[in-house]
Amino acid sequence: MEKQKRIIIIGGSAAGPKTAAKARRLDQNAEIIILQKGPDLSMASCGYPYYIGGTFDNRNMLLSTPTGVVRNPQFYLNAKGIDARVNSEVTRIDRAEKKVFVKNTVTNTSESLPYDKLVIATGSIPNMPPVPGCDLEGVTTLHSMKDVDFLRGIRDEKKIKKAVVIGGGLIGLETCEALRLAGIEITVVELLPQLLAFLDCEIARLVENHIRSKNTNVITNNGVVEFIGENNKLKAVKLSNGIELDCELAVVAVGVKPNVQLAREAGIDIGTTGGIHVNEYMQTNDPDIYAAGDCVEVINMITKKQVLAPYGDLANLEGRVAGENIILGNTVTFPGTVQTGICKIFDFTAGATGLTEDRAKENGIDYISVVNASPDKPGFMGGKLLVTKLVAEKSTGKIIGAQCVGPGDVSRQITTWAMAIKGNLTVEDMINADLPYAPPFSLAIDHAIATAHILQNKMKGRLKSISACDVREKVNNKEDVYILDVRGSDEFEQMRLGIGETLIPLGALRKRLNELPEDKSTEIICYCKISLRGYEAAIIIEAQGYSNVKVLEGGIMAWPYKREK
Amino acid sequence: MEKQKRIIIIGGSAAGPKTAAKARRLDQNAEIIILQKGPDLSMASCGYPYYIGGTFDNRNMLLSTPTGVVRNPQFYLNAKGIDARVNSEVTRIDRAEKKVFVKNTVTNTSESLPYDKLVIATGSIPNMPPVPGCDLEGVTTLHSMKDVDFLRGIRDEKKIKKAVVIGGGLIGLETCEALRLAGIEITVVELLPQLLAFLDCEIARLVENHIRSKNTNVITNNGVVEFIGENNKLKAVKLSNGIELDCELAVVAVGVKPNVQLAREAGIDIGTTGGIHVNEYMQTNDPDIYAAGDCVEVINMITKKQVLAPYGDLANLEGRVAGENIILGNTVTFPGTVQTGICKIFDFTAGATGLTEDRAKENGIDYISVVNASPDKPGFMGGKLLVTKLVAEKSTGKIIGAQCVGPGDVSRQITTWAMAIKGNLTVEDMINADLPYAPPFSLAIDHAIATAHILQNKMKGRLKSISACDVREKVNNKEDVYILDVRGSDEFEQMRLGIGETLIPLGALRKRLNELPEDKSTEIICYCKISLRGYEAAIIIEAQGYSNVKVLEGGIMAWPYKREK
Repeated sequence: MEKQKRIIIIGGSAAGPKTAAKARRLDQNAEIIILQKGPDLSMASCGYPYYIGGTFDNRNMLLSTPTGVVRNPQFYLNAKGIDARVNSEVTRIDRAEKKVFVKNTVTNTSESLPYDKLVIATGSIPNMPPVPGCDLEGVTTLHSMKDVDFLRGIRDEKKIKKAVVIGGGLIGLETCEALRLAGIEITVVELLPQLLAFLDCEIARLVENHIRSKNTNVITNNGVVEFIGENNKLKAVKLSNGIELDCELAVVAVGVKPNVQLAREAGIDIGTTGGIHVNEYMQTNDPDIYAAGDCVEVINMITKKQVLAPYGDLANLEGRVAGENIILGNTVTFPGTVQTGICKIFDFTAGATGLTEDRAKENGIDYISVVNASPDKPGFMGGKLLVTKLVAEKSTGKIIGAQCVGPGDVSRQITTWAMAIKGNLTVEDMINADLPYAPPFSLAIDHAIATAHILQNKMKGRLKSISACDVREKVNNKEDVYILDVRGSDEFEQMRLGIGETLIPLGALRKRLNELPEDKSTEIICYCKISLRGYEAAIIIEAQGYSNVKVLEGGIMAWPYKREK
Repeated sequence: MEKQKRIIIIGGSAAGPKTAAKARRLDQNAEIIILQKGPDLSMASCGYPYYIGGTFDNRNMLLSTPTGVVRNPQFYLNAKGIDARVNSEVTRIDRAEKKVFVKNTVTNTSESLPYDKLVIATGSIPNMPPVPGCDLEGVTTLHSMKDVDFLRGIRDEKKIKKAVVIGGGLIGLETCEALRLAGIEITVVELLPQLLAFLDCEIARLVENHIRSKNTNVITNNGVVEFIGENNKLKAVKLSNGIELDCELAVVAVGVKPNVQLAREAGIDIGTTGGIHVNEYMQTNDPDIYAAGDCVEVINMITKKQVLAPYGDLANLEGRVAGENIILGNTVTFPGTVQTGICKIFDFTAGATGLTEDRAKENGIDYISVVNASPDKPGFMGGKLLVTKLVAEKSTGKIIGAQCVGPGDVSRQITTWAMAIKGNLTVEDMINADLPYAPPFSLAIDHAIATAHILQNKMKGRLKSISACDVREKVNNKEDVYILDVRGSDEFEQMRLGIGETLIPLGALRKRLNELPEDKSTEIICYCKISLRGYEAAIIIEAQGYSNVKVLEGGIMAWPYKREK
């Protein structure tokens, strides 16, 4: 029998245990040790907000297998044959001697452990703004089970009235929802001009509108400059614009950074992103040391640039690759990410895959994009709205990104587009996609396919569209545009933009063409609820010789600004 | 200006109106006439079962735009500039003279209409078994609004106690659910040995079990030989096995055939499937005649064979292609279908895309397949079971088919696999797919990705699996196999197969290896709830030198047969 290998894995959250499990399945003889700094193993950290918000009450579910067995050292030993040690902090990696120094944080004893292969899966550390008051009671992040217990306690005690969430990213908004559900008054503070930086601003704004509709305050373009305390307890958050928000709780969720100190001290290459640099085998510059999870940088498959992608799903996939390669040699590769993400925010879901328009621009890609608003399924099945922004490479039509938000089934939409990117598909390829259709699940022409149709029309020059941002700017600048709402008058009574538009229902348009501006070069912007009728109106008007007719992308349903009604 | 073209479209259901709408958008001058035999236009026929079952009560929703405008001739004229004529039956196509003869079924007057381009979108006709009694009162299909009104009336009147649904396909089962929800006792009768022929038998059986759990009777391997009446009213259905089922209602849903009589009489090529043969431009053998929708045959993109694919989504996509080509010449193509389908059946969803194992076998494809059972999302988020069977080409790993059933989010799963086939992806490609993950939507390793992992393990020879069918056969044949359940004893108490298995929980297995059969060539079959622990057990046992260790695919959750508990 081969000499028994010793595998040491630093980190017991997501990537670490997955690496260990895969390694064990490929080698029943190897000694596999997980060294976990904290007291828990394999925590379902993406589930924290749902425990805090009360979606479920059994804390153990965050730490258990699906059949309810807690993933503690005993479980790892018995079920997996893995030596998982908790409260075991690695203090140093000695690459020359191939050993790690580990301190038991309970007994305070130290030892050194030699390894054949080492895997660094040290995860990430939450960012904290460098401002006074971070250590006040009532200021927390949401990163550890300790944080979870603290926040769940706040929910259960029902004492706190007001909280501020610093950071309008994914975790910030999930936390916002959890605390709001507990009846706490919330203000979300975001440094950038928009929430959810993985969305373009006009799409993010639809989410912001939804959050506000839940009696939640949102302040963008503002950072925290001080946590103000009294008797060491938080009593307010002071913002860069001078405003002080009274609150008893502040949750800081301004992103995470890779936890790379150990790696850096050991001379492992750190990339410009701040993450450990690995090759496609998840191997660092030391051939006996691999790394996986939030602590590494990975390649964005569209831009070919290294990025940080601290997602739980990728941590598992990377761990699986590392686990196989440490046992069998470099046999399998991790291809990288397109940074697919999704989150639930009250009754909305927001998701994205690939590049936004902003990211495409930053990367110098010549792109074309469109916004489509339409339901996920027929009205008679209770269809709910989806707003999708699709981005494609202009010259080739290759899909490079999609964002989707709304109360509808965003998950299926983002899955569709993530797979389209995976398959290197173009807008043309998506035109006749054969997706599962039945009324409980989709429209006869699925929202994704309809989005492709609209972008195809735009690429073929048949649809000249204009974004909500651009329309609003024209209105603000009092430009000479003729804005035409072609919905029914009953719809107009119920809801309308109020940006100087004229109402001519589509069904009456052919008879009322004489009401349009005489000058055929006038810029005319058509829309309806979702801009399908708007599109048909534009075609009718163009056929009359008008040369500058546009359609408002996504119609009223994708309009992210204040409406008259 | 170009001479005004006249486009005539025969059929006003799905493909016809879509063809007309697309043609109109590309040509504001063409005269576009839809000739619809029945009184309604653009019916949402896939929604019929949901109106019958009471998901919604407003009949007009089946005939209206999303904003509630009924799609009648007035609507088509005003909003679309399309001359849609109802009660207009085309009796003959004269290709030499390029005209159609049309009879008004209300006034009984006839006229002939010349065309420049003709589109045949005559849809399908429901099959009827050639048995006595088909015309009895109480025997119906579910195909027209008349059928809909009849069945909805039955629901509302609450007089009928017992009904038989003939045909266990998609429409049969949707109808079964609708009538069951109305409190009617249902028996589903299917000629084949299984329901839902688009699934392999062991997957279909899981759906059958679910239907039975709703107090619904299912009889397979049996056809109807007679509808027995009294005073011209149905009183029983007689089956080929001699059984007579008392009932007051029989819904016949034994598939549809393309409605091609007009086309055939006009000398249009009909394929061997019975559908109108068209090229990739949706053009028939007459260059001025196109066809789209249920009446045509299309290519299966995997087998390259012509198939009938009477789905509402394809009808729309085909219509869009036909609509563009009749205006602009043959510029766009329809690539074909992978026969993706989905349906809701009580609390289950059943979907499929590409080929089943049976179809792969029939087509002489060397395939490999696997069954995976796991939840759609974490237990703490109320995850629901999904059972997927994935089929890939053995030599290349190319995904050629997937089936998924269960109470979980099947729609996302089938979308994933339909897109994988669209993108020509392999099992390897799917291993590290970057899909949208958050606990409300998926597991950290999505069910689809986990399925790919399992099939990869099988392809690499790491997992030797055995299907439930094969295990059952071995048990029935009293073969010498050692069957090992590795779940916890609490789980064993709650639910178990009872096929002679031994229980050794995975966590105890390493210490109890001595309890395994002494003969290391004994066939050992391991499983747990979903066969993940079963897989780990198999690896542990193999490492002891056992040479014939297998894992039951999908574990207990995918076991389609009776269990002891």
